[in-house]
Amino acid sequence: MLMSYEESLKILHSHIKTYEKVEKIALTECLGRILATDIKADKNQPEFLTSAMDGYAIKFEDQEKPLKILGITPAGKMPEFKVLNGTCVKTFTGSLMSEGSDTLVPVENIRIENNMLYIEKKVPKNFAVREIGENYKKDEILLKKGTKLNYSEVALLAELGFFHISVFIKPIIGILSSGSEIKDLGEALENPAQIRSSNHIAIANLAKKLNCDTRVFPLLKDDEKATFSTLKSALQSCDILVTTGGVSMGDFDFLKKAIQEYELIINKADIKPGRHIKIAKANEKFIIALPGFPYSAMVMFNLYAREILNAWLLQPKDYICKAFLQGNYKKKTPYLEFIACNVEFKNGRILANLEGKKEGSSAIINNLNNKAALMIAPKECEILENGSLVDIVFMP
Amino acid sequence: MLMSYEESLKILHSHIKTYEKVEKIALTECLGRILATDIKADKNQPEFLTSAMDGYAIKFEDQEKPLKILGITPAGKMPEFKVLNGTCVKTFTGSLMSEGSDTLVPVENIRIENNMLYIEKKVPKNFAVREIGENYKKDEILLKKGTKLNYSEVALLAELGFFHISVFIKPIIGILSSGSEIKDLGEALENPAQIRSSNHIAIANLAKKLNCDTRVFPLLKDDEKATFSTLKSALQSCDILVTTGGVSMGDFDFLKKAIQEYELIINKADIKPGRHIKIAKANEKFIIALPGFPYSAMVMFNLYAREILNAWLLQPKDYICKAFLQGNYKKKTPYLEFIACNVEFKNGRILANLEGKKEGSSAIINNLNNKAALMIAPKECEILENGSLVDIVFMP
Repeated sequence: MLMSYEESLKILHSHIKTYEKVEKIALTECLGRILATDIKADKNQPEFLTSAMDGYAIKFEDQEKPLKILGITPAGKMPEFKVLNGTCVKTFTGSLMSEGSDTLVPVENIRIENNMLYIEKKVPKNFAVREIGENYKKDEILLKKGTKLNYSEVALLAELGFFHISVFIKPIIGILSSGSEIKDLGEALENPAQIRSSNHIAIANLAKKLNCDTRVFPLLKDDEKATFSTLKSALQSCDILVTTGGVSMGDFDFLKKAIQEYELIINKADIKPGRHIKIAKANEKFIIALPGFPYSAMVMFNLYAREILNAWLLQPKDYICKAFLQGNYKKKTPYLEFIACNVEFKNGRILANLEGKKEGSSAIINNLNNKAALMIAPKECEILENGSLVDIVFMP
Repeated sequence: MLMSYEESLKILHSHIKTYEKVEKIALTECLGRILATDIKADKNQPEFLTSAMDGYAIKFEDQEKPLKILGITPAGKMPEFKVLNGTCVKTFTGSLMSEGSDTLVPVENIRIENNMLYIEKKVPKNFAVREIGENYKKDEILLKKGTKLNYSEVALLAELGFFHISVFIKPIIGILSSGSEIKDLGEALENPAQIRSSNHIAIANLAKKLNCDTRVFPLLKDDEKATFSTLKSALQSCDILVTTGGVSMGDFDFLKKAIQEYELIINKADIKPGRHIKIAKANEKFIIALPGFPYSAMVMFNLYAREILNAWLLQPKDYICKAFLQGNYKKKTPYLEFIACNVEFKNGRILANLEGKKEGSSAIINNLNNKAALMIAPKECEILENGSLVDIVFMP
């Protein structure tokens, strides 16, 4: 009996150790990288009362009377004047409020006569004054270890004065595509039985989107000896070695044999596509033997390699959610099926449909285009009905 | 009266010309780039009948009798044998089917005695045979100009034999942050009235996510003459010059003046944040003067610069959808408001809530973290009610 998907994940997780590889990189290079430490505020922000508009810093109770203008506080300069009753200081967006002031009257609300300020439209107390610590307070943890650095997180690091940032080193994914029928980019096909390899470049790009570096190894021909030795040497240059092809029932499926030299932890699972999946361990490293069909290979990479990467890089499994199925889906196999679907957001609902998806095809382009996800059809069910809630997995 | 948001977009679009800048780049470098031509299939895929499993190529009507095994067709080799009645050829996943055969019997279904094949479990006609053109047909347009190249599109290009790909040259976004109170990365603050610039790095990263190159110009102090000359020189090195700060009501808001040297096409709009927005044209180029507050600057960049970039790079405006609001939202201003919100996918529904969002704050980190979007509160409404459908804009 084949192992269930849930069981295979459980076994996989029992073998994943904490990933401790950390490097420092420049703030200007860290978009999309994963933070490897918590980040704390070293002071309140703002540190002092700050003006949120262009106007005049006053005492709130002074709005009825003309006020003497003591001078100005340009942004970036320390205030020179103290606001006492009957006085005010011209203050700009981002400038500190003068000592003694508590309220800012915007320029739109005033008129000036003989260097005296007349307030024509009153404002509430503390108007347009940004409080101390309004954005964040001293010692507050602002970013947690494992945070993916998007533009706003990077902006915060800049504001805090960080320049050299601790991030996780990108795990290295090695990619070894096998099959005597496949030719590499730029190689001529010798006969119509040959095809151009796309798996290696697809997986490399998928891995890049998951915060990995990649090593694309030379294509592997169906040769038993070469398969054993290449697997061994390729493994030295990566953290996870992904192979494609060579794992089903054919006479030339040497990868299936070669991977058994290592600690085989998963050997087939009752899922479609990709039930021939094999995963082995070699010390801290993993070898994942994927099927040769591009669509199946991508799906399996997403289900297994992504699982390891998420655990290593502390990423949430937030790419699975529920969607309303449009149309019926009749299951084709007794396995847990992952079916390419389109996802649409409509009137506040997440909809999944199978339009244009080719069943059992090796084509990944119709199945896994920009808007695609995988719909999960559970083992025990026979039909997924129109309008029912189904689980979907977003691809990277 | 301020211009409406819709009107401002209409004016902006009337000034956007087609973007014709195309370059060729290596397939291995084109993840995330935008295709600048249509891509057609040069032949059927598969070109010939192909086996989808490991097994034996037979004539369908021959399943009842023992079959003579003529030999094998390894993947990547042209079939050497012709299948006549009473014969079969061992055939592997990805191998071409032998002439005369129409059905593949998988290895799981057979037994062999004295080099004769006995089929123990029959299969339907054409079983496990991939039809000619199953994936795509000759001359089919497979990818359209304007397609964003994700891993599966890149894989398809590899399979088609493309290596040097026509993509749109990344538009260059110049970023000029102004304000005497801001200090650059790595510079010491001289007093507590100064802050570190984060706008320039945030916008640079936002622009990178939108398929742009960036030029981050030296910070601009509040100096009238320098502002005029810097604007002019910076414009030479980019397609869209984005400035931050210097556009509100202050005495030192020189950008507001300097931009008037160009063809001002948008001068304020009735939106919050960012109603001081100014957009000018200089030949084919644009200058977008954003507010100085980081949160406001990001929102405005997303609303206006992204609009130009989408038009140039033929990207759909698919980042706006409806969500169910959790909790009530009372509008603060008479303007069209863009309010930072969190988005959650739950039970097939898209939910928006305002938890942890700081109103009117300059902080972008709470407001625009990884899961954030902008909720749109229309001008005419006063309250958005719990459970109602609202428009949301996803940030890049």
